[in-house]
Amino acid sequence: MTHARRYRPDDLAAFCTRVFESFGVPRADAATAAGVLLFADLRGVDSHGVARMYAYHEMLDAGRINPTPNPRVVRETASTATVDGDNGLGLVVGPWANRLAMDKAQDAGSGWVSVCNTNHFGAAGWYALEALERDLIGQAMTNSTKLVAPHRGAEKMLGTNPIATAFPGLEEPPIEIDMATCAAAYGKVEIARRVNGAIPSGWAIDAEGNDTTDPAAMMANGALLPLGSDEERSGHKGYCMAVMVDVLCAVLSGANWGPFTPPFTLRLAEPERSVGRGIGHFFGAMRIDGFIDPTEFKRQIDDLSRTLRATRPRSGHPAVEVPGDQERRARAEREANGVPLVDAVVQDLDLVAERRGVALPEPIG
Amino acid sequence: MTHARRYRPDDLAAFCTRVFESFGVPRADAATAAGVLLFADLRGVDSHGVARMYAYHEMLDAGRINPTPNPRVVRETASTATVDGDNGLGLVVGPWANRLAMDKAQDAGSGWVSVCNTNHFGAAGWYALEALERDLIGQAMTNSTKLVAPHRGAEKMLGTNPIATAFPGLEEPPIEIDMATCAAAYGKVEIARRVNGAIPSGWAIDAEGNDTTDPAAMMANGALLPLGSDEERSGHKGYCMAVMVDVLCAVLSGANWGPFTPPFTLRLAEPERSVGRGIGHFFGAMRIDGFIDPTEFKRQIDDLSRTLRATRPRSGHPAVEVPGDQERRARAEREANGVPLVDAVVQDLDLVAERRGVALPEPIG
Repeated sequence: MTHARRYRPDDLAAFCTRVFESFGVPRADAATAAGVLLFADLRGVDSHGVARMYAYHEMLDAGRINPTPNPRVVRETASTATVDGDNGLGLVVGPWANRLAMDKAQDAGSGWVSVCNTNHFGAAGWYALEALERDLIGQAMTNSTKLVAPHRGAEKMLGTNPIATAFPGLEEPPIEIDMATCAAAYGKVEIARRVNGAIPSGWAIDAEGNDTTDPAAMMANGALLPLGSDEERSGHKGYCMAVMVDVLCAVLSGANWGPFTPPFTLRLAEPERSVGRGIGHFFGAMRIDGFIDPTEFKRQIDDLSRTLRATRPRSGHPAVEVPGDQERRARAEREANGVPLVDAVVQDLDLVAERRGVALPEPIG
Repeated sequence: MTHARRYRPDDLAAFCTRVFESFGVPRADAATAAGVLLFADLRGVDSHGVARMYAYHEMLDAGRINPTPNPRVVRETASTATVDGDNGLGLVVGPWANRLAMDKAQDAGSGWVSVCNTNHFGAAGWYALEALERDLIGQAMTNSTKLVAPHRGAEKMLGTNPIATAFPGLEEPPIEIDMATCAAAYGKVEIARRVNGAIPSGWAIDAEGNDTTDPAAMMANGALLPLGSDEERSGHKGYCMAVMVDVLCAVLSGANWGPFTPPFTLRLAEPERSVGRGIGHFFGAMRIDGFIDPTEFKRQIDDLSRTLRATRPRSGHPAVEVPGDQERRARAEREANGVPLVDAVVQDLDLVAERRGVALPEPIG
């Protein structure tokens, strides 16, 4: 295990807020953005939390992101809209567009908002959970820069294109789904390389398009494989999901799609052509009481959750869980003990702190 | 390859129509139902076409399906509804509810309909393609009787729970997605057993919850695995998708979910408890022009399709395709040469023909 120090979540949120503010991001927006990041850190999704502050700072510093966007609706119906995010932080534009989807749902039963001209929006799960506060079923998707090969393809063409949704229980916690549509997260490949380990077959191909278990070979111009991995295990299905997310987020909104989706870092070259504006998100919200009595719905979700947890487990496997259980355990542990940041992340944040004149908080352990 | 005879699609459709009519299904409904079945046969999805006529006939004959249902809206908003299918054929209730979703989309921008008290609805792709006729983006899902183990589970708890959607092109054919959320179709396991073959690791577990490559072991109280297969290749993601489909189709509508979803055959025992009415479907439709100019959207879909097809292929693999390409090839071939039915299916249809006094058409080759 790489060495890590623990930080108070509130301290990290305050740090991120001040960094965003140092670029002219209004205080309320900066706080929202920091909240979305810390949500990921608390749930154990380290790749989407404060570890990304370096990239956000770099993009803002280079003038590649508008710190004071005016997102606007460019087309709408009672239950749909397209939003131009004015090249703002996805952490600001995303919550704005998600609120629009929820507002439309409260008026018309459901709301569906496709967003162009936006940037990395953090963890998709944050948006789906917001909807629970209003007794809505939320959905969130985003496209992202190319990392994944299409089924049978030898090169990166699609993002990791996650899908999130959540269903509330009455006594049980919600069923919370937040999943990329590739076989394994890029972060796991990075970790394997850091410890000189191998990755399982089915995660990735090398630059020649051959199966590889070497994380460095994937990272040197190889590609991740879609969920399902290969011909035998239905890699075409993960490919289908990734394409669906790309279309709803980017083609429908007029953003860049597929291999033309811009990267969220200055390290990578810009795509060879532009087919739209920025990246794309897609948000949905549906009123539960537009379908069924919400209390009855939640009772059934409780029953479903308990039924799934009672499944006889495979020998040698832990108990069957409900989507979200693992993230809730991480949250309880991290709320108690602080958010662990590995040295590489702390070094990045030190650099950000120095450049922006914002003190990095002290670790608590 | 098992021996197969070829039949004219129109002849098979007429046969199915007459069989449905023989049970009192009104002519228009019978023709719709037959059309949904033939759609699957023409696209090469043999498991969801006329091969199912035996099961439909058996369920109608046993009085388990209402031949003359009056589907009704039990709750609605401008863009959502719950439909009670009155225990009709899914092949009749499904198209009815899908039309309601499309009508709502035309009025409110989008329409989302959850359906309870219904039965097997054929291939999900049929419903998504209907939406294209109205310049809508369609979605269709259904839950189904238990066949799939939850991630880490040793027993069947969820259906194969497919998701379908389609996006129209201008000059290119549509992107057509229709995928079950398990690692491999049950039909493929059945075929492997018929030819005494093995199945790949990652498709299934045996009754003890151990990995198996023996199709008979899966079929003898084993289970299919969710898309992603196992711990290493993110089987939890296929599990998430299956749960999402189950909730939208069944919990939201008041149908039976998870292991309590009734089987579509008399061979299998009814579930040990009832948690709702029938099985559930979920249909969605969104106006493309509620988001973007439809011609611009279709041009971009053309561009995306061509871009994906131009991906450098992995060595030893065929060219990268767009979802739907394979089904279109099957359709062209079967429209030209007829629908092949294997002997076991012909025997089933002979039995249906004899019992219902409806002549089975002559094969054309």
